[in-house]
Amino acid sequence: MLRVAIVGASGYIGGELLRLLHGHPRVTVVAATSDRLAGRRVDGPHPNLRGHTDLCFVGHDAVEDAGADVLLLAAPHRETMGRMAGYLTLAGTVIDLSGDFRLRDPGTYAAYYGVPHTAPHLIPGFTTGLPEWHRAELAAADRISVPGCMATAGILAVRPMAEAGLIEGPVQVDARTGSSGSGASGGPAAAHAERSGALRVFAPSRHRHEAEIAQATGHTVRMTATGVEAVRGVQVVCHAKLAPGASERDVRAAFHAAYADEPFVRVVARRQGLYRLPEPKILTGSNHCDVGFAVFADDGTVVLVGALDNLVKGGAGGAVQCLNVRFGWPERTGLEFPGLHPN
Amino acid sequence: MLRVAIVGASGYIGGELLRLLHGHPRVTVVAATSDRLAGRRVDGPHPNLRGHTDLCFVGHDAVEDAGADVLLLAAPHRETMGRMAGYLTLAGTVIDLSGDFRLRDPGTYAAYYGVPHTAPHLIPGFTTGLPEWHRAELAAADRISVPGCMATAGILAVRPMAEAGLIEGPVQVDARTGSSGSGASGGPAAAHAERSGALRVFAPSRHRHEAEIAQATGHTVRMTATGVEAVRGVQVVCHAKLAPGASERDVRAAFHAAYADEPFVRVVARRQGLYRLPEPKILTGSNHCDVGFAVFADDGTVVLVGALDNLVKGGAGGAVQCLNVRFGWPERTGLEFPGLHPN
Amino acid sequence: MLRVAIVGASGYIGGELLRLLHGHPRVTVVAATSDRLAGRRVDGPHPNLRGHTDLCFVGHDAVEDAGADVLLLAAPHRETMGRMAGYLTLAGTVIDLSGDFRLRDPGTYAAYYGVPHTAPHLIPGFTTGLPEWHRAELAAADRISVPGCMATAGILAVRPMAEAGLIEGPVQVDARTGSSGSGASGGPAAAHAERSGALRVFAPSRHRHEAEIAQATGHTVRMTATGVEAVRGVQVVCHAKLAPGASERDVRAAFHAAYADEPFVRVVARRQGLYRLPEPKILTGSNHCDVGFAVFADDGTVVLVGALDNLVKGGAGGAVQCLNVRFGWPERTGLEFPGLHPN
Amino acid sequence: MLRVAIVGASGYIGGELLRLLHGHPRVTVVAATSDRLAGRRVDGPHPNLRGHTDLCFVGHDAVEDAGADVLLLAAPHRETMGRMAGYLTLAGTVIDLSGDFRLRDPGTYAAYYGVPHTAPHLIPGFTTGLPEWHRAELAAADRISVPGCMATAGILAVRPMAEAGLIEGPVQVDARTGSSGSGASGGPAAAHAERSGALRVFAPSRHRHEAEIAQATGHTVRMTATGVEAVRGVQVVCHAKLAPGASERDVRAAFHAAYADEPFVRVVARRQGLYRLPEPKILTGSNHCDVGFAVFADDGTVVLVGALDNLVKGGAGGAVQCLNVRFGWPERTGLEFPGLHPN
Repeated sequence: MLRVAIVGASGYIGGELLRLLHGHPRVTVVAATSDRLAGRRVDGPHPNLRGHTDLCFVGHDAVEDAGADVLLLAAPHRETMGRMAGYLTLAGTVIDLSGDFRLRDPGTYAAYYGVPHTAPHLIPGFTTGLPEWHRAELAAADRISVPGCMATAGILAVRPMAEAGLIEGPVQVDARTGSSGSGASGGPAAAHAERSGALRVFAPSRHRHEAEIAQATGHTVRMTATGVEAVRGVQVVCHAKLAPGASERDVRAAFHAAYADEPFVRVVARRQGLYRLPEPKILTGSNHCDVGFAVFADDGTVVLVGALDNLVKGGAGGAVQCLNVRFGWPERTGLEFPGLHPN
Repeated sequence: MLRVAIVGASGYIGGELLRLLHGHPRVTVVAATSDRLAGRRVDGPHPNLRGHTDLCFVGHDAVEDAGADVLLLAAPHRETMGRMAGYLTLAGTVIDLSGDFRLRDPGTYAAYYGVPHTAPHLIPGFTTGLPEWHRAELAAADRISVPGCMATAGILAVRPMAEAGLIEGPVQVDARTGSSGSGASGGPAAAHAERSGALRVFAPSRHRHEAEIAQATGHTVRMTATGVEAVRGVQVVCHAKLAPGASERDVRAAFHAAYADEPFVRVVARRQGLYRLPEPKILTGSNHCDVGFAVFADDGTVVLVGALDNLVKGGAGGAVQCLNVRFGWPERTGLEFPGLHPN
Repeated sequence: MLRVAIVGASGYIGGELLRLLHGHPRVTVVAATSDRLAGRRVDGPHPNLRGHTDLCFVGHDAVEDAGADVLLLAAPHRETMGRMAGYLTLAGTVIDLSGDFRLRDPGTYAAYYGVPHTAPHLIPGFTTGLPEWHRAELAAADRISVPGCMATAGILAVRPMAEAGLIEGPVQVDARTGSSGSGASGGPAAAHAERSGALRVFAPSRHRHEAEIAQATGHTVRMTATGVEAVRGVQVVCHAKLAPGASERDVRAAFHAAYADEPFVRVVARRQGLYRLPEPKILTGSNHCDVGFAVFADDGTVVLVGALDNLVKGGAGGAVQCLNVRFGWPERTGLEFPGLHPN
Repeated sequence: MLRVAIVGASGYIGGELLRLLHGHPRVTVVAATSDRLAGRRVDGPHPNLRGHTDLCFVGHDAVEDAGADVLLLAAPHRETMGRMAGYLTLAGTVIDLSGDFRLRDPGTYAAYYGVPHTAPHLIPGFTTGLPEWHRAELAAADRISVPGCMATAGILAVRPMAEAGLIEGPVQVDARTGSSGSGASGGPAAAHAERSGALRVFAPSRHRHEAEIAQATGHTVRMTATGVEAVRGVQVVCHAKLAPGASERDVRAAFHAAYADEPFVRVVARRQGLYRLPEPKILTGSNHCDVGFAVFADDGTVVLVGALDNLVKGGAGGAVQCLNVRFGWPERTGLEFPGLHPN
């Protein structure tokens, strides 16, 4: 059994890591850290795990003695970069879910995160934790940075077009997200009476994940992010200009070429019916990212849609998928849940 | 114009008072207090009022100089009783929306609120702010205590049966409430990701409002309170034993006798169809309390249902209705909004 | 009292017309038609009106004998154009809420509605029922066509920029709508288990309302429409390129110039805080359309946001506002409800 | 591999059977019937199964040739009883999810279902499909009738008290259910605009599932059923009188005695905190039924709470659990999903 420690295990991503790894046949969780809840059972903040585990949180420092083979880091942005050098001494493989090592250029990081990067020399050592586009590197990677939730949906929806040269110019990304994306810490903006039924344009532009999509696709990206009524779920609806001569047939072919053999990406692009395009509603709990498109030949544009569960494929599930790739296990291990309908 | 001051105007009840009084043709709001937000515009925490008023909050102390004819108190339980003696010197009429002067017996107060009552000598001076059952007294009352939201629904649903002697023994009250009932202060339990879709049995018994219903009906009351997915809205579903010989016809007659001429209570008791029994969904924003019943003659029981908007008829609207009664104005003044369907 | 007949009064728009006109001091509803429900009370399908009216539906033919001064038409697209010539003989003023007389060009109509227009000669006689941009004409108009719900939000958000020459090129409109926009007829796609929590991209492009925004602004418009979790409410988030030299100051000035004196359009464009940009959540039941913007000077783009209640400002309320303008009454008459917070 | 046929596979229960059996290592689905959708892919009405199966529906008659070892019947009440004799000739084991063979007494059936039972001689051959209380019989049963969703929650919550003699007299059951309990057929009452945010008391008394709880516990049961805002999920809140001398310690002991070794029943009864009592919110997709209690010693009453996912433990999952028991497999096989938090 591989020994895994989860750093920052009291939050929503930490809870999903615990859920997924509990059901993973090749992994044992040797430490789940939380300074605030050290000594308390993990099924307190994660009540879905009642009856499934007797694990208790330990303080962050205890990770040093855990003898972990792998560290999964679900700690806050900005804090993680300062501690990374230390983490790298503790385990052979580190998978980071924070935003600190996603952007290759420290200047871009500073522009989007509002602070200078404090460990820029470590950035080049990280591989992007998106198996669909980095599987070969991930199989040998010891430092993995998992993309952001909206970035994952956006990259998976846009990159096949970019790689095939089927779009040109800037890409407009309209991203919608449920409330769990803001984390478990609460606060007035998260209060149910305010957040319920919201269509909150919390980032009309310059959302951090836009930089990740730009980096991965080579296109200028303009993202608007809106909080919608949902707990889990991210959807991106992207608009781009088709390259001259690009047809719907080309678009469909590019998506199938990119994803036909992928275990977790489904191409959903029908002309009618319910669920004709990707929707997070039926992806809750699953590691799928559904992607789709609609081509408007007369004005030369394409609409690209991606959807996922932000805590699974857009977070903990993506990390476990990377773990499976890294250790040569079947990629679906521990990630078989197909999602629910209706839901 | 009557000069009204609102003490505790930054919360949800305070916001509703501002909304309703802004549309009231005989009232002017001379002060809206909030120590935390003194000097800030009231349309900050109450964004629905943008464009309708330029009023700013003042500190609580400023109410002394406001020259108010009426004080509307929307301050917290337990705090209000200590300050009541002072408030009574500031205006001729005081309408209190806290729980502190609802229960006639200080011992009952202590049992339900967990602290001794600090101004028990003031309790007898208060009239219950429920015009349907206290209209005559309210017309001359200078100290009015508005019932709790679930209590209002419960009393209006149960009391006609009690008065007519049509039920006997204890009454089981199943109360459901939206998230706004917890107020605007937030906190982890209020976070959208936790509160969304909840069926949270937060008070399996001993909810404070049960004591008010018992006091008003003379029956033993057992209330279970559940937080449900809604922002506004309260519904009570009450079970009681019919008195020997009581028939559906008697029940219907008692409801109509009690409420046929009431401006805000509608009897909704149909055998089929949507909205056959009261639902808060179509009462949002309105001052209606819908009440209804279903009689089960074969086993001698009756189900009594009440529904209202907790911030309107169960709070601010009830207070304004009392104001109208007290000053002899048409009772619907400022309270004409009928509610929305669909919603 | 002005005598008004509502044709097609059993649907959601019809119900809102009944609600608003019931509270309108200068209007009496002389007929509310529904062939299916003729003879039944209007408070059956519109239960919020219980206790407010004893009106019953009449058959469509009965409108001929109603002696109406004004016809309000809330009948389906495609059906209305064939009957319009007849309607015009029945009352001096006709206000149409269908889509049939919104587009000036019959060819555009055919392209977006999928059928040829059968009464193209009547189109030029209609004035667009949007007082903010057509008040003077409406004051003398006897044939009024109220814009679509998403079109109203889109036009009010985009047109100030277009008029001031502050944007150039195509406008991308991301429109989100609640379930009431699909009407009261139900069907599998409307079932709660499927529609709840949806992010249903039901029109990736070519939504009919896009043609109305294009017509009103002179810009090419590309609209994507998504059904979101809500009953009421429309929000549009629009992206456009700023004209060379246009600044945030110019944008703000243009919005204030357009709407400073408008009774129902509020400019909401703050840099932070909840409700910093328009959200339909706090507009339910109100006739407001909130509009706002965020300027991104560095890449020369602007995000324009509009929000409204699709059944009020985007439908019945817009029609009543036109009625007020047409008959010279204060424009807020019957439309004073400010909306609710929280909600 | 055991060969299983699903009769009535296009509905929501049918979809869940497909989902669960697809992930079950010892079962192969040899037929999924739907006359309406014969020849169409099962991932049409069940889009969560896209990419997981290429199975197509067959007509109901085709089940005769399927060579099934087990029939899982997810067909409508009233239809199933007439066809049961035929079904019993087609496979060695039949598991019925309809209501037709749940009640032992045909007279009770007639009273609750409104029609006489047409195959009363077959009723005694069926074993109740609730392993927690019938495990030994189920291990040898060839005819199994799975309880209703609200009945399952109610029986699991109440029966330990009844068996231990800790309650006396009638039990009041307040049952709340999401919209998926009404099935996939839609209709006006299911329309999102009407069903969203509902607190619809659709059965003030005499709900069918009340008869099942009465049968299983020996107590008179009075159930009120309310449709609440949720797609999945059932919760029952039950009130009963404690037997003389019964204490909280006795209640807790009885629950633990009943369920300590159960794989799918968790006892959740804490004094404070979120999720202190059972909530369906965190059970979506899981086969857990959480049960809990609160004792009010001073007035001698107990509140019993049960929660589950109506389509899993209250339907398809319960059936699969029976299948596991019947064939001697580990009871959790194919049912490992723990549920999600937050959700």
